[in-house]
Amino acid sequence: MAPYSVMVTGANRGLGLGLVKEFMKNKEIHKIIATARNPNDAKDLKQIQDDRIHLVKLDVTNDESIKNAHAEVKSIVGDKGLTTLLNNAGIWVKYVTKQEPNRADFMKNMDVNAVGVAILTQNLLPLLRQSAARMKGDFSLDRAAILNISATYGSISKNTTGSGPLKGLAYMTSKSALNSLMKTMSIDLSSDGILVANFCPGWMQTDMGGPKAPLTVDQSAAELVSSFAKLNKKHHGGFFSRSLQAIPY
Amino acid sequence: MAPYSVMVTGANRGLGLGLVKEFMKNKEIHKIIATARNPNDAKDLKQIQDDRIHLVKLDVTNDESIKNAHAEVKSIVGDKGLTTLLNNAGIWVKYVTKQEPNRADFMKNMDVNAVGVAILTQNLLPLLRQSAARMKGDFSLDRAAILNISATYGSISKNTTGSGPLKGLAYMTSKSALNSLMKTMSIDLSSDGILVANFCPGWMQTDMGGPKAPLTVDQSAAELVSSFAKLNKKHHGGFFSRSLQAIPY
Repeated sequence: MAPYSVMVTGANRGLGLGLVKEFMKNKEIHKIIATARNPNDAKDLKQIQDDRIHLVKLDVTNDESIKNAHAEVKSIVGDKGLTTLLNNAGIWVKYVTKQEPNRADFMKNMDVNAVGVAILTQNLLPLLRQSAARMKGDFSLDRAAILNISATYGSISKNTTGSGPLKGLAYMTSKSALNSLMKTMSIDLSSDGILVANFCPGWMQTDMGGPKAPLTVDQSAAELVSSFAKLNKKHHGGFFSRSLQAIPY
Repeated sequence: MAPYSVMVTGANRGLGLGLVKEFMKNKEIHKIIATARNPNDAKDLKQIQDDRIHLVKLDVTNDESIKNAHAEVKSIVGDKGLTTLLNNAGIWVKYVTKQEPNRADFMKNMDVNAVGVAILTQNLLPLLRQSAARMKGDFSLDRAAILNISATYGSISKNTTGSGPLKGLAYMTSKSALNSLMKTMSIDLSSDGILVANFCPGWMQTDMGGPKAPLTVDQSAAELVSSFAKLNKKHHGGFFSRSLQAIPY
């Protein structure tokens, strides 16, 4: 597995940073685009000594920011296009049924975790199509792919907790929306040879997951990247655990 | 089946109007609250001669409008509370993967079909709880219920068409979000005795469905109301066809 270029959103910390580090281990990957809302604050990313890494400013809720990032990515990948887009940036705005209604909070979660992902992906489609057309052949991460960090919490059928102590009403709704969005996009993009798949990374020790989580970021990132390498046409449009087990919607 | 009061959103035309007419046939229902964004234009509703019908102005994307509607509903239902809230209002903003990205259009679909439903429902919870507490006993439409008009198009696992000729990317995403939202809310509201269920009305001859649809609004409304009457605890949090067959998420 060696996509020519990989772009990871929300790469300044947590799983995004872990995925960048994991991709770095593969010397055949030529370009690793790591995005952050505030590149100046992305201390860990800046400390990495690797010419393949390109730090790009990106806020998925801002159309202007997406346009600027698109232009930068285009100049980085050149006529080879973008091989793999990994939509990782996400937020968890606490929200429960029995609280004072707050439309802005709910919409913010939907915007970052689902609608913003749609808008960014649409903007990058020409670059992904360029890679897919150049490589031809089977569906794979090396030809062209859109991978999404979703969550088992977004599984509607497996939901037995409700909002729960983590206050996940808006978060869960937004991840179900992401799963739906990408299932539809996967069908729309089949004829272009662009692979689409959604993943749950598991419960990790991050700012979002807290210190009690059973998994380290490095463990999850390693398992995810190993599963990404196995992706083919039969996984197109699917929703999987980090070890590539199907998760029901 | 005879809830003391029923509230139907988006009742000025299409399925909403059909459901109001169907509920009217049940003489044991005391209050039928029909909402519309522009009550002045709701000609069909205004022509109905039935003292039980109360026309209330409501735009689910507007917090101020929801607050005003809540106050009106409260004065209509009195200390009996609101028995059944039927979230029917919805839109279909055409959107496909391969188009110029348009965040406002996508967000509008999410706001009306999912987030606005969350905000309205949260605002009405005290009135629904009042009814549930007064009636006690089994889960039913007559005690307290939140029913939602979703769509099989919102089923992620059954999606084989992609955006399709109807340009459903944003619509499908928003209905999956609605299904997820209400599954979570159903668990959060179990202890309050408030039944929650989602329905697909089928493809109907409405402004949204077009003239080629196989079902009339009256047929769908009759089947839906018949199914509503059968709802009990085992349907809580579920997603069903108009004839009460389970639909996978």
